[in-house]
Amino acid sequence: MGSPGALAGWGLLDYKTEKWALLAKKGYQERDPDPQISVITKLKGVSVTQIKELGNQLWDVADFVKPPQGENVFFLVTNFLVTPEQVQDRCPEHPSIPLANCWADEDCPEGETGTHSHGIKTGQCVEFNGTHRTCEIQGWCPVESSTVPMKPLLVQAENFTLFIKNTVTFSKFNFSKSNALDTWDATYFKRCRYDSRYSPFCPVFRIGDLVAAAGGVFEDLALLGGAVGIRVHWDCDLDAGGSDCQPHYSFQLQERSYNFRTATHWWKASGVEARSLLKLYGIRFDILVTGQAGKFGLIPTIITLGTGAAWLGVITFFCDLLLLYVDEEAHFYWSTKYEEAKAPKVTTNPEQTEPASTPPHVAAQVS
Amino acid sequence: MGSPGALAGWGLLDYKTEKWALLAKKGYQERDPDPQISVITKLKGVSVTQIKELGNQLWDVADFVKPPQGENVFFLVTNFLVTPEQVQDRCPEHPSIPLANCWADEDCPEGETGTHSHGIKTGQCVEFNGTHRTCEIQGWCPVESSTVPMKPLLVQAENFTLFIKNTVTFSKFNFSKSNALDTWDATYFKRCRYDSRYSPFCPVFRIGDLVAAAGGVFEDLALLGGAVGIRVHWDCDLDAGGSDCQPHYSFQLQERSYNFRTATHWWKASGVEARSLLKLYGIRFDILVTGQAGKFGLIPTIITLGTGAAWLGVITFFCDLLLLYVDEEAHFYWSTKYEEAKAPKVTTNPEQTEPASTPPHVAAQVS
Amino acid sequence: MGSPGALAGWGLLDYKTEKWALLAKKGYQERDPDPQISVITKLKGVSVTQIKELGNQLWDVADFVKPPQGENVFFLVTNFLVTPEQVQDRCPEHPSIPLANCWADEDCPEGETGTHSHGIKTGQCVEFNGTHRTCEIQGWCPVESSTVPMKPLLVQAENFTLFIKNTVTFSKFNFSKSNALDTWDATYFKRCRYDSRYSPFCPVFRIGDLVAAAGGVFEDLALLGGAVGIRVHWDCDLDAGGSDCQPHYSFQLQERSYNFRTATHWWKASGVEARSLLKLYGIRFDILVTGQAGKFGLIPTIITLGTGAAWLGVITFFCDLLLLYVDEEAHFYWSTKYEEAKAPKVTTNPEQTEPASTPPHVAAQVS
Repeated sequence: MGSPGALAGWGLLDYKTEKWALLAKKGYQERDPDPQISVITKLKGVSVTQIKELGNQLWDVADFVKPPQGENVFFLVTNFLVTPEQVQDRCPEHPSIPLANCWADEDCPEGETGTHSHGIKTGQCVEFNGTHRTCEIQGWCPVESSTVPMKPLLVQAENFTLFIKNTVTFSKFNFSKSNALDTWDATYFKRCRYDSRYSPFCPVFRIGDLVAAAGGVFEDLALLGGAVGIRVHWDCDLDAGGSDCQPHYSFQLQERSYNFRTATHWWKASGVEARSLLKLYGIRFDILVTGQAGKFGLIPTIITLGTGAAWLGVITFFCDLLLLYVDEEAHFYWSTKYEEAKAPKVTTNPEQTEPASTPPHVAAQVS
Repeated sequence: MGSPGALAGWGLLDYKTEKWALLAKKGYQERDPDPQISVITKLKGVSVTQIKELGNQLWDVADFVKPPQGENVFFLVTNFLVTPEQVQDRCPEHPSIPLANCWADEDCPEGETGTHSHGIKTGQCVEFNGTHRTCEIQGWCPVESSTVPMKPLLVQAENFTLFIKNTVTFSKFNFSKSNALDTWDATYFKRCRYDSRYSPFCPVFRIGDLVAAAGGVFEDLALLGGAVGIRVHWDCDLDAGGSDCQPHYSFQLQERSYNFRTATHWWKASGVEARSLLKLYGIRFDILVTGQAGKFGLIPTIITLGTGAAWLGVITFFCDLLLLYVDEEAHFYWSTKYEEAKAPKVTTNPEQTEPASTPPHVAAQVS
Repeated sequence: MGSPGALAGWGLLDYKTEKWALLAKKGYQERDPDPQISVITKLKGVSVTQIKELGNQLWDVADFVKPPQGENVFFLVTNFLVTPEQVQDRCPEHPSIPLANCWADEDCPEGETGTHSHGIKTGQCVEFNGTHRTCEIQGWCPVESSTVPMKPLLVQAENFTLFIKNTVTFSKFNFSKSNALDTWDATYFKRCRYDSRYSPFCPVFRIGDLVAAAGGVFEDLALLGGAVGIRVHWDCDLDAGGSDCQPHYSFQLQERSYNFRTATHWWKASGVEARSLLKLYGIRFDILVTGQAGKFGLIPTIITLGTGAAWLGVITFFCDLLLLYVDEEAHFYWSTKYEEAKAPKVTTNPEQTEPASTPPHVAAQVS
């Protein structure tokens, strides 16, 4: 290789790299990248809506969270269209549906339907309103025909609060931690709000703040709905003690439009089945929890050291390359390093241990 | 090692391997294997069912999708049994239930129940129908007793359409892409259908086509239900530009039988609580999105080159093995390569740089 | 390096390590760590509740499982509070709500509300019951005010059974397996219970047994709810045949408190909308399936062998260190191993192949 000085230089480089691999990248730790995760969510708040079809109506958590089970994915209703008291009957199709508009019965083939239709055509062309004539259909009547309100109906949803209870368990180290303060004070969570410095274990978030943190404007997102991702990440160094282990929250705006239809069925006094159709707009929250924990382990330490040592082989190779091909005395090092191994000739002194010569096509690498 | 020629040969092999690791396997790229994923689904279509209990009934999306929120997992009802207007009462158990059949009251211990029972036994043996006598139970009455229809009731579900809106975000590269064409044309998605060549950004699929692509027959699967997996995979080379980044869809038939029971509760005029029990058969769709993106990075390039170089050490070792043990001139190479290092003897000429001799148990490797 | 004996020693160590990497750690196998997974669940059982508001009521699977679709996550109701027949009206707020208590109308600003409120204050202070006066609110009336029962209402839920149907597909090897016995006997699953030795393919579990296996006490967990994780792990050696491939179940208690509110809406004969509010306590079950499969592959075998060989380079290095720096004859080995390469001097005999001398700052490594 090179002189002991150069060797020392390479050794130092390797030592620095090893130190980084071992200490900065925590190469001495056993890792658990896959904790068991449990998430429970709970929304709180009320909002009053005023619409022609339903009058003054108060919405609370049993009304505006779908589904209600409090899992890691849920939908918060911020706006809606309602078509109350539909029954199975015949009625005019909505003009916006493809092939719904007509002049006469011949324009409405009986039994025809399309993927966007509200029902099956009866064969008649009827009046929808003063200006439109559409094909009559058999289905849930009257068809949905309101228009989206100009402003989100549940505008006070901005002030609702979301409580996220999250427990991570690193089974490799038998270590478990929750993001909620372990307290007997039943009113703590009624009063506190999340703050990364002053109350990192109060995971109560105001909805408007979540949307803003994701880069959205609540009133815009609330009008036609959207989706917000909440990522909770745990990075725990168990050698530093469990208190070091805190969740980090980040928020991403994923979609800017989200709605779906749902219906409530009931039976009228007459025995006829009725339903109330709702087209709900709102914000879906997706909570994703990830985490990893590390703790000192003998085997990872040995492996990191060994890997560092293996690189010495590479360094040796490159060092040789430099001396043999780059350095100006290269031809000299070449001759010192390599000697041609030639087939043995008979010599008068068998004790001689000087390297014999061989035909020139084979050069034995001396180093 | 070998001659410069052989060294060149090994070098070429190593160069080819490195080139493959670097170019074919894109070893020069930084990778993000874990994008943030958002999925919204929407089904459209109507289907008419005709059954004795409900007469002619039209089912639309608010009726046949469970749950209705449009997430990545949903159930499409294709067949059902209905037991309308159950109330809490006493009635005969169904003969198919274990321990339901009886001859006399003694066969029906009061308070007994089993995991398959519809209620708690009252202690009486009553008539179920003309041919069977079963234990009377207290519970939701009458008990479920219809038989599965011979053909799926919502057979037109084959023509329903599924729209999958999917956004992937590779946060490492601050790159985001959606599988739906970014268009102001509100009717585009009403007309288009997915085609990998002509409309790869129209993710509207016909249900029958999805089932067929998964290897199933719709009418068979629709009768007793099943489960279909839809995998969306993104493989994006960001050095080639974002337009190269398209989703690839694949479909797998996961289950050939799927049903569950659900009920709608309401209160009759009399103030009595009633419910309509539905045993729903259908196809559950599970959408799984995976993805990875790559972009040129200096560190991965260096690591790939370095790893390739490290293999030279292995090649050197194997080369030695060949020459020392396999080649017919092996014994010769051995003597050239190794010289015995013996403990220094006092010699008359201290300047001699010929290797001294040592006891034969140690051979210094000269190469 | 050392003598052939020492070399053999190191070779043996390397052989042992390779054998472990190859056989014990199955380094010769191609692996698929990411199977496609499908889970269907089905609960069975009935439970009778007796409460003042509803009288004697039987709950069956359509009542106590939320959601009903039979997916890998579901909630089993074990206890509840019911506020039947709420309507939109004015009524006294509950005294437990912050800022609800009052002496006079001035204490109740009209339009005020808080995140814990049941409605919007009307501005009046009214009587809640004999002992309390609270602000009147507009909202769903009467407000929820029952207290949690001392014992779980659905206590027989302990005897309910959970059937978990799980299919894993390792697409790399085109191999699929289900955890349920492939049988035509329709009554098999009605009678069997899971046992790891006698019936490993009968995945029917008693709820009480699941909670106990997770380390919980059913009656405690059932009172205020909780969450239990069920992990199903598959580890399949496809070289040993598919019959070797069985699921392993483990259970973890994740939470000790879980409740949420939901409501059933209907329309009274008068046309007024009513709802029944339920605060449900229960146990959420999260089923997580993981799996990996291995099968002989040529490429992994070669890579494992090669990696083992690469370590020989490290061993060589350490061996050198020992001989050069640690051994008492080190100085001797040093001189044998290293010869100083000095710039070539003109010599009278160009045939001499004895190493020439160089200025002492460069030592060519002879080994």
